[in-house]
Amino acid sequence: MTTVKKEFYSLRCTLTRTAAPLKVCIVGSGNWGSAIAKIIGNNVKKLKKFAPTVKMWVFEETVGGRKLTDIINQDHENVKYLPGHKLPASVVAVPDLLEASRDADLLVFALPQQFIHRVCEDMAGRVPRKARGISLIKGIGEGAQGLRLISDIIREKVGIDVSVLMGANIANEVAQGDFCESTIGSKVKANGLLFKELLQTPDFRITVVEDADTVELCGALKNVVAVGAGLSDGLGFGNNTKAAVMRLGLMEMAAFARVFCKGPVSPATFLESCGVGDLITTCYGGRNHRVAEAFAKTGKTIEELERELLNGQKLQGPPTSAQAYHLLQQRGLVDQFPLLTAVYRVCYEGQPARELFSRLRDHPQHK
Amino acid sequence: MTTVKKEFYSLRCTLTRTAAPLKVCIVGSGNWGSAIAKIIGNNVKKLKKFAPTVKMWVFEETVGGRKLTDIINQDHENVKYLPGHKLPASVVAVPDLLEASRDADLLVFALPQQFIHRVCEDMAGRVPRKARGISLIKGIGEGAQGLRLISDIIREKVGIDVSVLMGANIANEVAQGDFCESTIGSKVKANGLLFKELLQTPDFRITVVEDADTVELCGALKNVVAVGAGLSDGLGFGNNTKAAVMRLGLMEMAAFARVFCKGPVSPATFLESCGVGDLITTCYGGRNHRVAEAFAKTGKTIEELERELLNGQKLQGPPTSAQAYHLLQQRGLVDQFPLLTAVYRVCYEGQPARELFSRLRDHPQHK
Repeated sequence: MTTVKKEFYSLRCTLTRTAAPLKVCIVGSGNWGSAIAKIIGNNVKKLKKFAPTVKMWVFEETVGGRKLTDIINQDHENVKYLPGHKLPASVVAVPDLLEASRDADLLVFALPQQFIHRVCEDMAGRVPRKARGISLIKGIGEGAQGLRLISDIIREKVGIDVSVLMGANIANEVAQGDFCESTIGSKVKANGLLFKELLQTPDFRITVVEDADTVELCGALKNVVAVGAGLSDGLGFGNNTKAAVMRLGLMEMAAFARVFCKGPVSPATFLESCGVGDLITTCYGGRNHRVAEAFAKTGKTIEELERELLNGQKLQGPPTSAQAYHLLQQRGLVDQFPLLTAVYRVCYEGQPARELFSRLRDHPQHK
Repeated sequence: MTTVKKEFYSLRCTLTRTAAPLKVCIVGSGNWGSAIAKIIGNNVKKLKKFAPTVKMWVFEETVGGRKLTDIINQDHENVKYLPGHKLPASVVAVPDLLEASRDADLLVFALPQQFIHRVCEDMAGRVPRKARGISLIKGIGEGAQGLRLISDIIREKVGIDVSVLMGANIANEVAQGDFCESTIGSKVKANGLLFKELLQTPDFRITVVEDADTVELCGALKNVVAVGAGLSDGLGFGNNTKAAVMRLGLMEMAAFARVFCKGPVSPATFLESCGVGDLITTCYGGRNHRVAEAFAKTGKTIEELERELLNGQKLQGPPTSAQAYHLLQQRGLVDQFPLLTAVYRVCYEGQPARELFSRLRDHPQHK
């Protein structure tokens, strides 16, 4: 093929791609993935920019003798992970990951953190190189430095640009259409704005910021602060003390972001839904808060309480505190982070819950 | 007297003043004034910089057949406004305002807002011109522009520099020594640092910032946001919605400060205890939140609920929303403040509580 011909085909291909509606694939179908599928499935019906069918990869399982994909495609309800909410018919459950994702323009990652490596390895080289991703996964991975952003894992393994969506978004409340907010962090702003079009509704309001790593760190570190807030409640302290724990936690999240992130960290990002908003919901309603409160009250171990209160599911706050602590230790910065450090020591080194408050008395914020 | 002699006396006077311990007067003896008297009374015992006796002006009344000042000076307890907490013997109750304040170096204003004009007029010209004040009053006055800072009223009438102290500080929790934080705003930083010495303890931690007007506005406007948060709870919304109301409220507080304040407004100030910290305690525990929740649930008027729930005491949120609304109206900025405006209209113009959420759907933050 001549150079001219090549260029012609390349141009035609680009023009076609621009004009063609963008195909969306949701990678994951748990509580949060299903809630966001409800939003996306409705939005694609209204916006010509997006293809009218949304593929949702569903890890196949049997529920009441039927395949979960069949239930979703016939009854339009994820009876296992988001019962009581109808999904739009535009959302099609697909049990095969590669079939669901291979022609996607937009990939929405909403699966439990522990599956991210395997899923990304399966997708590597098998999704369009021009696809754009967004991670809805609130957590943090393991890396050489002690911790690694989930978006970096996806970016590296799948080879695409990845934005993140984080905010005060309890899935069931989003699914029932209650008014709330969220934050998209996107290093390529155009991609962030595109995902905003895909995800925003009159009741799910989105702001887009560029320090995506900060946004993602907020989604992980808030769980550590929630452990602190739970300890405060469990020890019987009132609203003043809890507000101080939450605020100092937010300040440590900001300081940690400045240590960890390569790019600029905007203080304003902590005032977004991913910062103060999500912190509020997590410190008043989340499982990290609940287990930590019981921990301070009963003296049982975190593992015992995970068995008793969470049916054996694992909390994210304590391991995140450990990953953060190890990074801070490597850099000789432990003293600058009394709250993160105290949560780690209370959870893993047998220090009493009250230790948190002795440490906060000497916080660098008040120097 | 010759010029040299004058200069000598002036210098001696300055030196004497520098060396002499600073006399503190607390103007007010309610719940918050008494709690802060406990802190100040203990601190002056440890710090030579301050005179060992602290005068507290007490509006005289009779409690159980005894004068309140006698009870405080003999039993060291303000049985009416802070029962159950011993005050240090260094705190001396004085029923005469001028006797309490006339030789003060540091004046701590902690009285109900409605008395501020009269008290300042009584003090005008009768306290040392070099005295420094700090206002602990969370509220806002009436002025030509629709609203006026309490610190400006004190500054103008008494003719002294005035700092402010605002934060997540429920008085009873402070009095019992629970760990908490507060923010001093001071246009003259040295004065802010001096008040920090006077007021900080291992469990009452203080940061000092320079945009004092922002700090003070936070202490008033948070009550409007708390009305919004109460409406959200009263209508049965969950944590996502409440977090969104609180965060958008914080953003409107910041935007309002930029409209109102003459000096610079630092975004970081909203991350201090006076900002996000106090907002959290007020939206989860305060009376504005409680009455607004009942308002949305029962459909009774604010006045009826003030009688039923507050024994006839007046809420601060609704009138503050009116003062803010009128200023915004004058400046043609109502559309930029959907939350402040909706709270005003729900409280004063008979709009249904749900109106708040229709307005938030169109918030400039998400444009």
